[in-house]
Amino acid sequence: MKAAILAVGSELLTSAKTDTNSLFITDVLNGIGIDVVFKGIVGDDRAELTVQFLQAFERMDLVVLTGGLGPTDDDVTREAVSDALGLPLQEDASVLAAIEERFAKRGWEMPAVNRRQAQVPRGAVVLANGNGTAPGLWIEHNHKGVALLPGPPREMRPMLQALAEERLARRADGVRIHRRVLKIAGRAESRVEERVQPIYSTWLRQTPPIDTTILAAPGQIELHLTTRDRDAARAAAMLDAAIAQLETAIGDDIFSRDGKRLEAVLGEMLLERGWRIAIAESCTGGLTTSRLTDIPGSSAYVELGVVVYSNAAKTALCGVPEELIAAHGAVSEPVAVALAEGIRARAGVEAGIGITGIAGPGGGSEQKPVGTVCIAASLASRSEPHVRTFRFVGGREMIKTFASLAALDMTRRLLLERGTDVDWNVMRG
Amino acid sequence: MKAAILAVGSELLTSAKTDTNSLFITDVLNGIGIDVVFKGIVGDDRAELTVQFLQAFERMDLVVLTGGLGPTDDDVTREAVSDALGLPLQEDASVLAAIEERFAKRGWEMPAVNRRQAQVPRGAVVLANGNGTAPGLWIEHNHKGVALLPGPPREMRPMLQALAEERLARRADGVRIHRRVLKIAGRAESRVEERVQPIYSTWLRQTPPIDTTILAAPGQIELHLTTRDRDAARAAAMLDAAIAQLETAIGDDIFSRDGKRLEAVLGEMLLERGWRIAIAESCTGGLTTSRLTDIPGSSAYVELGVVVYSNAAKTALCGVPEELIAAHGAVSEPVAVALAEGIRARAGVEAGIGITGIAGPGGGSEQKPVGTVCIAASLASRSEPHVRTFRFVGGREMIKTFASLAALDMTRRLLLERGTDVDWNVMRG
Repeated sequence: MKAAILAVGSELLTSAKTDTNSLFITDVLNGIGIDVVFKGIVGDDRAELTVQFLQAFERMDLVVLTGGLGPTDDDVTREAVSDALGLPLQEDASVLAAIEERFAKRGWEMPAVNRRQAQVPRGAVVLANGNGTAPGLWIEHNHKGVALLPGPPREMRPMLQALAEERLARRADGVRIHRRVLKIAGRAESRVEERVQPIYSTWLRQTPPIDTTILAAPGQIELHLTTRDRDAARAAAMLDAAIAQLETAIGDDIFSRDGKRLEAVLGEMLLERGWRIAIAESCTGGLTTSRLTDIPGSSAYVELGVVVYSNAAKTALCGVPEELIAAHGAVSEPVAVALAEGIRARAGVEAGIGITGIAGPGGGSEQKPVGTVCIAASLASRSEPHVRTFRFVGGREMIKTFASLAALDMTRRLLLERGTDVDWNVMRG
Repeated sequence: MKAAILAVGSELLTSAKTDTNSLFITDVLNGIGIDVVFKGIVGDDRAELTVQFLQAFERMDLVVLTGGLGPTDDDVTREAVSDALGLPLQEDASVLAAIEERFAKRGWEMPAVNRRQAQVPRGAVVLANGNGTAPGLWIEHNHKGVALLPGPPREMRPMLQALAEERLARRADGVRIHRRVLKIAGRAESRVEERVQPIYSTWLRQTPPIDTTILAAPGQIELHLTTRDRDAARAAAMLDAAIAQLETAIGDDIFSRDGKRLEAVLGEMLLERGWRIAIAESCTGGLTTSRLTDIPGSSAYVELGVVVYSNAAKTALCGVPEELIAAHGAVSEPVAVALAEGIRARAGVEAGIGITGIAGPGGGSEQKPVGTVCIAASLASRSEPHVRTFRFVGGREMIKTFASLAALDMTRRLLLERGTDVDWNVMRG
C-alpha cells in the first residue's frame, strides 16, 4: 500500500522552517505496513494545493495531509480537497456544537471565524480533536483513503494514531514493517561498514529479507534493520537473531538496542552500581554535563559539573597543579587525568570525567590544532584512569558535540571494564 | 519566477531523516527573487522520480533537484531527468577526465562505477564540483531551467551559489526578496503580537508592501520582515524605517536585528565592557554555560561555570549558606541570588548568574510544581541583583531551554540597566 504525505503551510516553504510532522506520520504508517513513497510541501494556496493533492491522489492508495485546517482564510486544505474530489463542503452541526462547547468551557464565545472549521466535505468522517478546535477528516473515495489532519503536533499525533488503529491498519495488507535501531559510538563509519557488511549482506538472501541502513550522525552511527512480515513473532525472532550476529562482531561498540541515548545508557549503568559522577569540562563548556542532565532522574547520579576554561579555575576547582599545566600545557593528557581525578575526589564520588581541548576557531597550533581534545575517565574502583587524545574535525559546535559524546562513551566502556580502545579520530601518543 | 525543489533519496523518506538542503536552496533562490512554491521528497526510484519531475517541470519556471548523482545503481536523478525530457545520456570526456584526475590525485584508480557520473543529458551544462566527484548539471529546456545538484551539503552549497550568480539571477525578473529578522526574548507571543500588529498592518498598504511573520520558538520570538523590490537601496531604507518603528514600541525586547543568537549578543556586551561572567546552574545542568561557550572567543569572558545539583555542592562551590536552603528550600529566590552572588565573588568576576529550579518530571510539589525556576543575575557594579521566579511549561529539555534563555536575557537586560520586568511566564511574588 503506497502513501503520500502533503504538509500544508506557507511557513514550511521559507528558509527558516520545514515540515517535521511527516517523520512521525511515516513512523506510524510504516508501523502498519504502509510505504511512504512521496512527500510534498505546499503553501497556503488553494489552487496549488488542489493540483498537488490530485496528482498524489491519482497515483497513491492513501494521501495524508497535515496543516491548513485552522479557522482563517489562509487555511485552505478542506477547500482544496473538496475541489479536487468534487465533494461539496457542508456545515456539520455536531462539529459546530463541539467547537462551540470547547470555547464555552473556557467561558468564551466562539469567534465567528471558527465556524469555517465545521465545514465538512460530503461523506467525510469527522476525527475528534482532543487538543484543539480543528477536527480531522477521513474520506474514502474511489477505494482510496484521504486523511486531513491538523498541523500542530499535539493535535495531529493522537488523531493519526487513532486513525491508524481504527481504519488504516485494516486497509493495509497485513504485511507490517518491523524495525530495530542499534546505536554505536567510538567507531568510524568505514570500520563499522567493513565489519558488518559481510553479515548483513547474507540477510538479503533470506525470506523475508532484512534491509540494513547505516546512518552516520556526528559522534555516533545508527544501524537500522528493517523487515516486512505478516507474522510479527517471526519478524521479531529474525531481527533478534540478526542482532545477535552483530553483537558477536561489534558487541561493545553497540551502546543501545532500543533507541536509547548514550547519556541515558550511561546513567542506567551508574544507577545500577549506585555510583555518582562528577565532570570537569573545558572546551565542551558544559555540554557534557548538560547531556547527562537531560535524562529524567539524573540528579540521582550527577553530583557536580564544572566548566573550567581558565587555568586558574582548573587549579582552584579541580586541584590541577599549576606546574602540571606549565609542563604539559592545558590541553594535554596529564591535565585531562588531573581534571577527572581531581573533580572526582573533590566531589567524593565514584566516577569522574575530565575534558580539555581546543574547540576553535582560535587557539590552535601546529602541534595541537583546533579539534585536539584530551579526555580522561576515572573510577574510584580502578587505580588507572583511561585517557585518549582525539582530533575532531568540524566547527566549534561540532567539536563540542564529538568531544562530549566521546567522553560519555569512554566512561561507558570503562564501566564495562573492557577497555576504551576506540578507533574514532584517536591520535596515538 | 516560480521554482520547485525536489530532494532525492530513499533515506529522506524514512522516519529518521528528512531533507534539509531545501532550506539553504530556498534562502539562495529567495535572495535573487525566485519564489519556492513547492517542495517534494522522492526516493531512489527512477519511475517515481520521472513522474514527479515532469509534474513539477510542467508547472514551474525552475526545478532544482538535489541528491541521486552518486555512482551507484541507487542514483537515478540523471536518468530520470533524461527520461522525462527525452534528452539521451552521453558520456562527457572532460567530466570523465576530471573524475579520474580527482582519484589520481589521491593515488587511487577510479572505480568502474564512477564512470556513470560522466553521463550527461544531451545539451546539459556541467557544473564543477570542488568537493566531490559528482558534477552538477544545468539544463535549459522549453525556456525553463533545471538544476541537478549533489546531495552532500558541502558539495551542493558552493555549486548552487555559483549557479545563482552566473545563471539564475539574470533569469529572475530583477525583483529581489529582502528580509530582516528581529529576535525577541522575555515576552509572550500574544504580547508581541498585540504591540506590533497595529504597526505592521500599516506596512501592507505601502508600495511595495512589507510582509511580517511572527515565528515563536521555545524561549524566543522572531519577527520576519520581507519585501520585494527591484531597488535594493529603497528596500533597505524601507526595512530600516520599519524596524525603527518596532524599536519605539518594543525596543529592549529586541535582542538581535541581524540574526545573532542571544548568547552571542550577551557575549558582545560583556566584551565591550571588558567584563567576565560566572554561572551557577542547578536545573539547567550546564546548558546555560554550554550556550555561552558555543560562541567563538567566549573563553575571553566565560570564567567559570558550575553545575550544582546537590545542596552540598551549592554550599561548597558557591558558598550558599545551609541555613538559607533550609529556610527557603533549594528552589527559591534567596538561593538563586546566593548562587549568582556566590559564584561571581568566588570567580572574582563582574557578572554572575544563578539558576535553581525543577526541570521534572519528578520533584515537583503543589507549591513549587515542575517548571518552577528561580533565576538571579548579579553585577559587581550594582548592589541589587535581579531575581525572578518563572513557571515554564513543557518537558524536561524544554524547561532547561526556556530557563537557560531566560537567564541569558535577564543578564542582557541587567547590563542594559533598563530592568528585567519581563512578562514571560513570570510568577509575581
